Order: sequence, then C-alpha cells, then structure tokens
Amino acid sequence: MSKPSIPQGTRDFSPEVVRKRQYILGTLRSIFELYGFQPLETPSMENLTTLMGKYGEEGDRLIFKILNNGMHAQKDADKEKMNQEWSKIMERSYSSPVVTERALRYDLTIPFARYVVMNQNEIAFPFRRYQMQPVWRADRPQKGRYREFWQCDCDVVGSNSLVNEAELLCIYRAAFEQLKVPQITIKINSRKLLAGLAEIAGVPDQMMEMTIALDKLDKIGWDGVVKELSERGISAEGAEKIKTVIDLTGSNDEKIIALETMMQSSAIGMAGIAELKNITKYHEQLADKNWSSTVMVDISLARGLNYYTGFIVEVMCGAVKMGSIGGGGRYDDLTGLFGLKGLSGVGISFGIDRIYDVIEELNLFPDQLVTGSKVLLLNFGGDNETYALSVLQQLRQAGIAAEIYPDAAKFDKQMKYANKRGLPFVILPGDTERESNKLSLKNFVTGEQIMVSLEECINLIQNS
Amino acid sequence: MSKPSIPQGTRDFSPEVVRKRQYILGTLRSIFELYGFQPLETPSMENLTTLMGKYGEEGDRLIFKILNNGMHAQKDADKEKMNQEWSKIMERSYSSPVVTERALRYDLTIPFARYVVMNQNEIAFPFRRYQMQPVWRADRPQKGRYREFWQCDCDVVGSNSLVNEAELLCIYRAAFEQLKVPQITIKINSRKLLAGLAEIAGVPDQMMEMTIALDKLDKIGWDGVVKELSERGISAEGAEKIKTVIDLTGSNDEKIIALETMMQSSAIGMAGIAELKNITKYHEQLADKNWSSTVMVDISLARGLNYYTGFIVEVMCGAVKMGSIGGGGRYDDLTGLFGLKGLSGVGISFGIDRIYDVIEELNLFPDQLVTGSKVLLLNFGGDNETYALSVLQQLRQAGIAAEIYPDAAKFDKQMKYANKRGLPFVILPGDTERESNKLSLKNFVTGEQIMVSLEECINLIQNS
Repeated sequence: MSKPSIPQGTRDFSPEVVRKRQYILGTLRSIFELYGFQPLETPSMENLTTLMGKYGEEGDRLIFKILNNGMHAQKDADKEKMNQEWSKIMERSYSSPVVTERALRYDLTIPFARYVVMNQNEIAFPFRRYQMQPVWRADRPQKGRYREFWQCDCDVVGSNSLVNEAELLCIYRAAFEQLKVPQITIKINSRKLLAGLAEIAGVPDQMMEMTIALDKLDKIGWDGVVKELSERGISAEGAEKIKTVIDLTGSNDEKIIALETMMQSSAIGMAGIAELKNITKYHEQLADKNWSSTVMVDISLARGLNYYTGFIVEVMCGAVKMGSIGGGGRYDDLTGLFGLKGLSGVGISFGIDRIYDVIEELNLFPDQLVTGSKVLLLNFGGDNETYALSVLQQLRQAGIAAEIYPDAAKFDKQMKYANKRGLPFVILPGDTERESNKLSLKNFVTGEQIMVSLEECINLIQNS
Repeated sequence: MSKPSIPQGTRDFSPEVVRKRQYILGTLRSIFELYGFQPLETPSMENLTTLMGKYGEEGDRLIFKILNNGMHAQKDADKEKMNQEWSKIMERSYSSPVVTERALRYDLTIPFARYVVMNQNEIAFPFRRYQMQPVWRADRPQKGRYREFWQCDCDVVGSNSLVNEAELLCIYRAAFEQLKVPQITIKINSRKLLAGLAEIAGVPDQMMEMTIALDKLDKIGWDGVVKELSERGISAEGAEKIKTVIDLTGSNDEKIIALETMMQSSAIGMAGIAELKNITKYHEQLADKNWSSTVMVDISLARGLNYYTGFIVEVMCGAVKMGSIGGGGRYDDLTGLFGLKGLSGVGISFGIDRIYDVIEELNLFPDQLVTGSKVLLLNFGGDNETYALSVLQQLRQAGIAAEIYPDAAKFDKQMKYANKRGLPFVILPGDTERESNKLSLKNFVTGEQIMVSLEECINLIQNS
C-alpha cells in the first residue's frame, strides 16, 4: 500500500494549531459581535455560473470545478453530447454544465453578494455581516500560499454613511489590540483621491494604470515608478505632480489640509479628501483613546482590486517582515452583478494565515492554549482504577479538563504519554492514596509531588 | 441576468441559524475539551485514492470529484490521452488521475485514519481527538438530507480499554444534559454478542445477514424479521432462539445475567457479554448521578456499517419522532487501510443537523442567541450623531454588543430596522438627551421608555 498523503497546497491542522486558530477566530468573532455584526455562512459549493466571470480570466482559471456526478449513468444518446462538452473543457471553456455545474467558493465576497440578492426581502438593511470560512484556489502552492485557506470578512451593505468606514477601522484596531499584536499601522486612502491625482497629472482616464505603477513604490522606488508612469504615457510634469502629492508628510490633518490646496482643480479629488476628512473625524469620535495602533492617511495606497470605488484600507504590522495582514474598501455596486442595483457596500478582510504567522513569530499565543487537559490520572488497575474514575468524575464536575490513561499500562509508558502531551499535572492514585482517600499530585513543570485531598487538588489545579 | 441560486442540497445559514449552530457546536466542544479530547481539522479535499474503495460501491459513486485544473493547457500530444481518460469516467471508472485526482471529504473517519498514519511518530497514543467539519455527498437531496452537512466525531485510537467506551457514553450524556435535550436513551450492544447470536441460531457465518434483518425490527415487526431470516436460510428453531434473546427485558444487569445463561455455548457471545458488563461497570463509576438520560443494553441494535467489531452505540430522543441523533462503535483495524496495523479505535458521532432540529422543535435554544446586538443607537445627525458615537464607544467598552444606525435616516426607517432585527433596546440620543448628558432608553419588548444616565443605561442593559 502506498503511503497516504494530502493534496498539494492543503494542510492538516494538528490539535495545537486548531487551538491557536480558534483563539484568533474566537477573538475576531467576539469583536464582530460587540460591534453588532451578524454571522453568515454560505455553502462551500456555488453554481459555477455564480462564480465565473467575477474574478477576471485568471480567477476563472483558478476556480476549482466539481465534476458532475452520475454522468456514466446517462443514456447512450446523451454520451455523444457529453463528449462534445468535454472537448469544450479541453479548449478552456468551462461553461459546460454537462461536465461541471458546481465549483468551490473562491472568496467570501461574491457568495455574500449572491446571498444578499437572494434574501433581500428578509434582510434588515443596512446589513452588517461577518463570515469566516475556507476558500479554494487552484494556485501554484508556495510558502504561505495555500489552495485551501480561510478568509474572514466583515462588511456593511446598504448604507453610504462613512460612519461604517470608521466602525471598520475600530474593528481592526480593537481586534489587534485584543490579540496584543504591536506596531499596527492602518493605512487609509480613497479611490476618489487617486482619480483626482490622475486628473491633476493630466491623465484622467488612466487612473488604473497610474495606481498599478504606484502600487509598486515599495518595491521599485520612485525612479522605477516614474519610468513606469512615462511608459504609460504620463508626462514628466504629471509625474512630478503625483510625486509632490505622494511625498506629503505630517499628521493626517496636515496631509488633508495640504491636499485640499493641491486638489482644488479636481472635483473628484476634493470628494475623496472630504471622505477621508469625515472618516478620520468619525473614527476619532468612536475610537478608544488607549489603543496602541495608528491610522494613517497614505495617498500611495491603491489596492489592486478593481471593484473598490471609495475608501480603501490596508493593515501592516511593523514588528515582522510581511505583507499586509488585512485590507478592504468600499464598492458601490457589488450586488449589481446579480441584478440588485444601488446597494453600496464597504468591508474589511483579515488575513488569518498571516495573522497566525505574526502571532507565532512574536510568541504572542497564550500559554494555556497548547495542551487542552490540565491533568492526567494514571491508571494502576483494579480498585485503584475504580478510585481514579470516581476522582476523574469529580474533577470534571469542578470544570477541570481531565483524562485518565485508559489502560493499566506500565508506569513509564503512562508518564511518557503525559510528557509527550505536555500536560501540566499528573495524579497518581495508588494503594496508599486510595486507602487514605487522598491523591498524589505531581506538577510536571516543577517536578514537585505532594499528597493532598481531592478538594486541595482541585484548588491547586484551578489556581495554577 | 438570471436570478442567482445555490446548488441543490446546500444551504445558506442565516445569522440566526449560525448562532444556533454555534451554540450546539460550542457546547460539544466544551464537553470534548473537559474530557481531554483534542481538536483536529483536515482539508476539505483529499486525494481521490485516499477515499475511493473505502465506502463501498455506492459510496464511491457519491463522492464529489474535483476536475483537475489546467487541462486545457496540456500539449496536444497529451490531449489524446486525456480523451481516453475521459472515456473511462464515462464508463464509471473514476480512477482517472488525468481528469480528477482530488475529491471532497465524504466523512471524518477516513481522513482521521489517514492523519493518524501520516503522523504516527508525532502523536501521543492513545490519541483522543474530536473533529467538527462539513462533509459532502452527491446523494439525492430530500428533507433532512443535504449534499453538504456537518459531522461531529469524537474518537480514541490506540487503546483497547473499555474505559474509552464508558468515557464516550459519558460524553453523550454530558452533552445532551448541557443542551437540555430530554428523554435521551443511549442504546448499547456489542457486535460480538451479535456474532454469538448467529452462532446459537446455527448460522455462524451469517451474522451480517441476520443483523440486516434485525435492523428492520422497528419497521417490519417480528413476523417480518422471521420471514427475512427464513429467506436467508435461518431455521424456524434458530429464529426462535434469536427471538428469545431479543425479547429479553429488565435492567441492564438482568439482561446481562440472562444472556450469560443463553450464550454459554458461544465463546464470542460470552466475550460480547463480558464487554457489556465491563462497559456498564465503568460507566457506572464515571457517570454523574444527576444526569437524566439512560443507557440501555439493546441486543437488537446492529448499526449498518461493516467496520465495527465490538461495542456499538446509538442515541435516540424519545421527545421527538426522529431516527437516531448519534451513533458509533469500536473498529479494530481502521488505520490498517493505510498500512498501520494493530491500532484499535472507538468513536462516536453527533448528528448535528438532527440535533438542531430536535432542539428547535422542543424550543430549547436560549433566547439571547437570536439578535446579537443588545441595543441600537438611533442616529439624529450632526451633534447628536457625535454624542451617539461617544456613547457607542462606552457601551462597547462595558462589553455591551451595540450598534448605531449609520445614516441620519428618518425616525420610522430606523425604528423599523430595530424591529426587523429584533433588538431588545433602542437608545434615542436627541437634543434634550445630549444637552443634559442623559439617554432615553426604550425597551422594545415592554415599550417602556425612560431617561437615564449612561451608567444606569449600562446597568439596565446588562441586567436585562
């Protein structure tokens, strides 16, 4: 028999990893709930027609398609048609419902839009939902990039108010505060400001090209960006104007004041500035003064995805070398894809895998997450086993996670198990202990062993 | 644009449903942890070779296969081969790695066995794991049967001790106790006792046929079972012996004593009785005396799946008309499928969808699960909005889940939203309130509205 394995780009999560992930997801869940957001879960599979054409050509290619079942049971007459459909697949056209009509979810945004449209009459708008589920992409696996990974999204749909933007900024800050992640910078910008920038640079129709070049600023430096801008037909004078804006320093208020002067000739640019002004004002009113993270207006922030139309946001952690650990923005007509026009949405996303890596690298996971059980009762068989079982029941009744070694195996084997599991305590219920109705409690960290009553034992474990 | 929909047999879970499901899964999780079980999560996809041949021919057919990506990018030379492979699919052979090499998980047991074999050197045995994840089956959807549904399994692998069986019985009882589900009966039996029954009925090789007939006792009555037994070559005398055993009444101890007399001629039957005797003894020592559920030896209990070799268990709720809401048993050589021999396992499963239906039907979900937010702050715009935002921040700091209506919309619209969401409280921060630094708090259930300080407001909401 060949050695079993798992598909490339997928992962088993061991108990320790599941607990750490639960800690992150549970923290986020509690913040979302505190902010009045509601949980949603959608199926892993969507109809292929729901997904195709929503993520660009590259996205279409990376969607995992599910083979229809029962094809072999078709009548012979149908088989010729199925063979034709198969040829279509081979020619890169996936619009072949005979071969595949379902696919695995590619992100959480399109399923959310689909849900909103399907349930528009039941939903109380503005609808504030969060969603934490896996998504699948047939990308080439590499370090930190998986074919199955979790997304964690938080969106408001059906409200134009910039209070929502401020709420989402506070959610980011509250979450990273609670997770104790240091040096968090939340960069914000508006697509409208970028459009204004394109206008004053003299290339109003090339906002996307300009932002694609700007997006590379960190990697290729300003000289590289100027070169790219020039290749895209932006004049040296225009590039200089862009540079002046991008180079602005100072506090958010100072940047906004300077921008107001520079952007005067662009109506859309001024609208972007007004947005940032209001968002920072609302955020100021809503934020906890003790939070350690910062919110920074960053005019070079672009975010790749096309569908953002206003506010955009990205989260960086200065304490580790890593890309953004969260991002999002406002999209004006997402549900329009499914025929429901005029609903504006704004949302943020948490990069769960990267956040996990940050917390791991900075050693910020709470200690108690690791083992689960607090104590193992050794099993000495016979009457001692009976005694141990009654103790076990009482420990659990006191709320202590506890287990018994199920077999009366050799002492060494049982101790080795406790050690491998990393359990903090072991109870040794032998003849002496049973006859005196006491327990020997061994602290696995200090090595100390003491004889105590059950009550004392419970206290010691609970206060450890 | 056509109306969006979701694939047949799948479900969106609305916020209310997610919260109720979380309540069930969270309760089970806390019990598993209390009993020292560890969480595991495996990928949604497995290699097709891991799954095929493990669930019988019907199972193979019901596995959702994933189309390989990038097939269209193959060289022309490969395309002929791919077309041949496609023909194989059409002829019902799914062993075509060129077309599909991955599939969606069909249950949690095979992935668990695969995980244990792959990680045998890192795992501390006996390995006690729980796993709560969706599985997929291409079954014909019908009421209560879905193509994507959750399984919740709890297994111990690497120990022959019957203490494990007793622990699992206690987990069932503790879980249903905590979920407040009444009239729970946990039926237990041993496959060895069924083998013994086949022996004393004179058909030692027909244990499976006999149990298949017995499994229908509830549906077709004793006359029907006798007819089936006779069709399967079991004599009237044999059937009579079977009936005598099945008809045994009384307490578990009384049944066991009677069985010991009847089974004396069958070594395997006696081994089965010894198992039940020890399991009930251990269970007695370990169980909480206050639990309301009962554990009942039921010799007619068979459980369909072939791989059980000893203890079997099934959970029924007498308060609703429904099949079993949980089940499991011991399997002697599960990991042998993947080349690791000699590891015995025992496990139970919770039927999450059915348990949800039971709790819903009996109206046992806690009230506070429904809305999430406790209070909505109305938005009267301008200075009142600013005032509302500062109140909002302080409510959340006090741990109260709260939200603000993000737009200064018409009063009626905002109240309608609060009503549709089912929120228990609304705060109206208008001019009067802001100027006197007070709040008008409206109880949405009683209709009562009072003017209070923020501190009083927090107290009132927290104690509601």
